[in-house]
Amino acid sequence: MEEIKVNLGERSYPIYVGFGILDDIGGLFNQRKVCVLTNPVVDSLCFERLEKSMGDAGIEVKKIVVPDGEGSKGFDTLCGVYDSLVTAGTARSTPLLTLGGGVIGDLGGFAAGTFMRGIPYVQIPTTLLSQVDSSVGGKTAVNHPSGKNLIGLFYQPKFVIIDIDTLKTLPEEEFLSGLAEVIKYGIISDRKLFDYLESEREKVMKREGGALKYIIKSSLKIKANIVSRDEREAGLRAVLNFGHTFGHAVENLTGYGAIKHGMAVAKGMAVSIGISSKMGLLSESEGVRMLNLLEDYGFDLSLPGFSRGEYEDVINYDKKASGEAINFVLTEGIGCVSLKKKRVADIVDIIEF
Amino acid sequence: MEEIKVNLGERSYPIYVGFGILDDIGGLFNQRKVCVLTNPVVDSLCFERLEKSMGDAGIEVKKIVVPDGEGSKGFDTLCGVYDSLVTAGTARSTPLLTLGGGVIGDLGGFAAGTFMRGIPYVQIPTTLLSQVDSSVGGKTAVNHPSGKNLIGLFYQPKFVIIDIDTLKTLPEEEFLSGLAEVIKYGIISDRKLFDYLESEREKVMKREGGALKYIIKSSLKIKANIVSRDEREAGLRAVLNFGHTFGHAVENLTGYGAIKHGMAVAKGMAVSIGISSKMGLLSESEGVRMLNLLEDYGFDLSLPGFSRGEYEDVINYDKKASGEAINFVLTEGIGCVSLKKKRVADIVDIIEF
Repeated sequence: MEEIKVNLGERSYPIYVGFGILDDIGGLFNQRKVCVLTNPVVDSLCFERLEKSMGDAGIEVKKIVVPDGEGSKGFDTLCGVYDSLVTAGTARSTPLLTLGGGVIGDLGGFAAGTFMRGIPYVQIPTTLLSQVDSSVGGKTAVNHPSGKNLIGLFYQPKFVIIDIDTLKTLPEEEFLSGLAEVIKYGIISDRKLFDYLESEREKVMKREGGALKYIIKSSLKIKANIVSRDEREAGLRAVLNFGHTFGHAVENLTGYGAIKHGMAVAKGMAVSIGISSKMGLLSESEGVRMLNLLEDYGFDLSLPGFSRGEYEDVINYDKKASGEAINFVLTEGIGCVSLKKKRVADIVDIIEF
Repeated sequence: MEEIKVNLGERSYPIYVGFGILDDIGGLFNQRKVCVLTNPVVDSLCFERLEKSMGDAGIEVKKIVVPDGEGSKGFDTLCGVYDSLVTAGTARSTPLLTLGGGVIGDLGGFAAGTFMRGIPYVQIPTTLLSQVDSSVGGKTAVNHPSGKNLIGLFYQPKFVIIDIDTLKTLPEEEFLSGLAEVIKYGIISDRKLFDYLESEREKVMKREGGALKYIIKSSLKIKANIVSRDEREAGLRAVLNFGHTFGHAVENLTGYGAIKHGMAVAKGMAVSIGISSKMGLLSESEGVRMLNLLEDYGFDLSLPGFSRGEYEDVINYDKKASGEAINFVLTEGIGCVSLKKKRVADIVDIIEF
């Protein structure tokens, strides 16, 4: 088990990364009781191991199960989680463990941050996407009919547990969705990771332990470093949104859930790479390498057939830009981002639809 | 207009105290739009002045009105506030102003703290209770069927505006409810304030401007100082709960709303004074002065007729104590508190029912 530190002063915490940590998790807690938020699929795959490990350490486990999927990230489910926390006899010191993917982490983190003005919580992400991205950084949220993640808060976990073994049972497209974020880290900040993803594609796609550990640790180091320097997304943290402006637009226009987050981000990255090239920020050869890498991993980089105006409108709405300039994350080469302030209309004009 | 500072590092903020500030509020904002959360009563009494002042400064005001009373502090109203914030076109930089008493401040602060992971908010308390207590310190909350303020977070305002003129129209019992907290500050931390409340009772009860300004400023200085040293109630801040353990028990047993918060806290303070005397912490003469002051202001100090066991159960439940020792705030003399760790049963045994 290795440790990566997120440095946030009194809110600092470690990320534990390793194989089979779930079987040996009890020793990390000094409470006599914990609550675990999970969904039916992860419950059946992982909960028993966690419960046994806790039991061996004399820790009582109260399980809270919510339905799978983005639909669970609303107020009805949230209220149900609060009810369950009450029923479980949760005290101010009782930790809530979020065992699952991004939905479980976001929802559980928000519930923990607001129950009794904040109880401790521990992220145990079980998808590649949540392991390399959403479980670290303290962004928690629930959805509102008017917007995904519209209601939320920054609330840091006490620690994050990443058991790489949980990826063994992850469906192929979920795994690929997570890989998009890994490739993003390579493009924005880590040429070595990028090279590795190029040269060791087979090992990665076969989910070989060593390869997974390398790409997860590399991703987490970048995320931890950026979050440590900009906890509340005042500036720098925006570079993590590379590919996300158009990615979100794709998710929004096609209806959330129709295209997986990572698949949409891959399309968004292709757009950003294209814009960077056309603006003369990026050499042709590096741009081609980026696009080839995405295609080699099997990402479909075509943009869904909506009009220029539809993309413009949905991005302006998402960013509350109302026609004013916003920050776009572009790339000047592998491992190197660049923030440019542009009106959405001007950016959209550069793209070939 | 005078300024009292709450020192919390990067979350520091000023409290502005004065007469008629609402008529000159526009200059405090550099945004082009603000949202204002209020209730029908305060809307009719104060909103026009605020809106005119904002208008003079070229600031657009979006008003959100929720029903009066503690019943508004639930999830249904909260969701309505979120909807209104969306409809108002709230951006990350748009401040939410809470114009009203504790319910408006708590609800609005929670909404602001969770909308888009936190928008700025400004407390404009219009009751004595909220001016001297809940508007300062960043405690925000909504109610859950299982408990008052069960869902909440610590989220500090950008500043607090206290227009003493708003107290002119405050109903008598609301005013008295606030005075209980003022007397509390005198007992726990400020002999000069206590003496003033004794000698200038008539001026205070007539709500003379100078008297109100003195007691409000004295109270705020104490609250600001304590909050600055213990933002998240890790220890010291607990002294602000003097009289509140039994106060909450009274509110809970009689049903929230039946007895006003301050009236219940006055009863709770009388209990704590009695316990302090019986434990030999407090001289008889000082204990008598405290009780006399409360009675002179018209507080009924009798405990509602519930049994020893009922008080014990409700306090144990409220404190999640399950029979274990909890911190009681007692007094060793005017201006001097003392925290004692005791089991609820042992404390209840000291009281004459």
